[in-house]
Amino acid sequence: MSERVWNFAPGPATLPEPVLEQARDEMLALPGAGMSALEISHRSSWFEQTVGESEAGLRELLGIPASHRVLFLQGGASLQFSMAPMNLLRAADAPAGYVLTGSWSKKAAAEARKEGEVRVLWDGSETGFTTVPDLGELDTDGLAYLHVASNETIQGVEFPQGFETAVDSTLLCDVSSDFLSRPLSAEHYGLLYAGAQKNAGPAGLTVVILREDLLERIPDGLPTMLDYRTHAESDSLYNTPPVFAIYVLMLVTRWLRDEIGGLEQMQVRNREKAALLYEAIDASGGFYRGHAAPEARSLMNVTWRLPSEGLEETFVAEANDAGLVELKGHRSVGGIRASIYNAMPLEGVRALKGFMDDFRSRNG
Amino acid sequence: MSERVWNFAPGPATLPEPVLEQARDEMLALPGAGMSALEISHRSSWFEQTVGESEAGLRELLGIPASHRVLFLQGGASLQFSMAPMNLLRAADAPAGYVLTGSWSKKAAAEARKEGEVRVLWDGSETGFTTVPDLGELDTDGLAYLHVASNETIQGVEFPQGFETAVDSTLLCDVSSDFLSRPLSAEHYGLLYAGAQKNAGPAGLTVVILREDLLERIPDGLPTMLDYRTHAESDSLYNTPPVFAIYVLMLVTRWLRDEIGGLEQMQVRNREKAALLYEAIDASGGFYRGHAAPEARSLMNVTWRLPSEGLEETFVAEANDAGLVELKGHRSVGGIRASIYNAMPLEGVRALKGFMDDFRSRNG
Repeated sequence: MSERVWNFAPGPATLPEPVLEQARDEMLALPGAGMSALEISHRSSWFEQTVGESEAGLRELLGIPASHRVLFLQGGASLQFSMAPMNLLRAADAPAGYVLTGSWSKKAAAEARKEGEVRVLWDGSETGFTTVPDLGELDTDGLAYLHVASNETIQGVEFPQGFETAVDSTLLCDVSSDFLSRPLSAEHYGLLYAGAQKNAGPAGLTVVILREDLLERIPDGLPTMLDYRTHAESDSLYNTPPVFAIYVLMLVTRWLRDEIGGLEQMQVRNREKAALLYEAIDASGGFYRGHAAPEARSLMNVTWRLPSEGLEETFVAEANDAGLVELKGHRSVGGIRASIYNAMPLEGVRALKGFMDDFRSRNG
Repeated sequence: MSERVWNFAPGPATLPEPVLEQARDEMLALPGAGMSALEISHRSSWFEQTVGESEAGLRELLGIPASHRVLFLQGGASLQFSMAPMNLLRAADAPAGYVLTGSWSKKAAAEARKEGEVRVLWDGSETGFTTVPDLGELDTDGLAYLHVASNETIQGVEFPQGFETAVDSTLLCDVSSDFLSRPLSAEHYGLLYAGAQKNAGPAGLTVVILREDLLERIPDGLPTMLDYRTHAESDSLYNTPPVFAIYVLMLVTRWLRDEIGGLEQMQVRNREKAALLYEAIDASGGFYRGHAAPEARSLMNVTWRLPSEGLEETFVAEANDAGLVELKGHRSVGGIRASIYNAMPLEGVRALKGFMDDFRSRNG
């Protein structure tokens, strides 16, 4: 580990070392193929196996039923903010419901308004996006769909596990920043989408999981690349997909299955990691002030403030010198953010907790 | 070279070995950063330098003037088929002119029809897409823009160098498959776009070069991710770009500059490589029948037929056994296709020529 630092970036983010090692070892020639995963055709038998194993890995880890399609797209969650309502709202004669729990779900709603009627069912902006609603208490009658973000990367608020089972509407969910971090009930979702660059792989790949019957709602005349049917009918091979990113995703799904033991085990580890940091916050006597309300605390992005912006700057700088990097909060909200996705080892979180305790004892 | 084969795939395609070696050596930790290019933040100083050097490299190699912006997007040329007319045709009160020289320019026109009026100025489909027109002879008066594909990957037909100087309209060009293979006059283009996965890097990155004044033609209300202004105003950092692919592009621009000596030198090599294969075709007494008319022969994708489909299958299979892979023509047209992009060494093309001559002597 000597040359590697502890990378707490919110995405792109740290990846499992065995995944990086295999990508390195196969960089000039994939076994049996004689070329790099950066060079190989998306029409090759190697890639057919790779994309097949990637999908099978996601299906196994997440329990995705046969009713749902798995698509590998580009453009990030930001393009899904538009693509989802182009496909599922533009031709609907009903509004879409949006729940605003942070910066990303707010952006999603803004894009949806360009495509149809949006009804904001809950808005946490006035209280600074510190918590999430109980979705079972919202009036979702007559909606084309209900859209939420399961975890808000910038604010560090997350819906509790199993929240999707309370929804009595077609549920669309931006799951970018807690994808694969815990089990979910895939059958309760109409559409799940995730930029890969937090828990699933490198930037440049978007995973979309879509209930197949929703394809019938899509209007004709959309740009071909923005019509989910294009990608469903071609098994994500309508045009050249991001081959290398899908290869890394496949390696990550292997790691989750073989090294971690699945998403329940992953969740145990993620809870343990997050608990260390929230303990450091709660035991700080107010020196560290957590942003999220306790019931909405994210296991992926832990966000907090210090008594002054000056101390926050010092904290980030000294942490950086100690090999704990990318701890600055998002420029739109300030403060500190530690992103502790799947691939961040307990050892790295322990190092951060130790630094937090030491910093407080010196500055508190 | 023992474990690597000669990869004649049309894209994703072979990359320079020094580029792959550096990507391998830095896979676990970029010097000074302590993390992989697969993990590092797009807001990091490392990436700021990388994206800056990538743009500077393209500007130097292609002579891109200050009037033009360089954008790094996702979705491939296929998304540009829609994005270009959404931005530049939808609000125009004039038709767009399209020149159909092969499968890709035909697809581009089909997407543009969804956004506005399309006038097909030249259509090579009835003669099987074997040649290209003289653009100076087309009537381009009153067009919103003229769209062409400089090289057709599937048919192997390419406009001659400097063709753009004959165009008296706003020129939009899909340059995916001959990008960086020869010098061009960037100032003559309104919009250039290229999927990176032939000459510029791995799949998952699209380079867009846009004359800045065209930004004023863009209508309001487009999906944010599909509005060129979004990416121009944010220097391609509106959302997470494909970091690793941009890093590889940077390494490729270094290779072109330092190892090759620029695009004029690259063109000399590409001409030499293509000449070998066209010589093998022309000297075959009709055993190999080239698809493209001599004046439109591509330097990137050499396409030909054999006397029967059975012989074509044998040719592909025996070539494969000899370590010359991915020579099968596109499924829509059949035959043989050898893609010999920048990174395919002369040695590989010589090996293919030797195989062609030998195969003919055994089967002719």
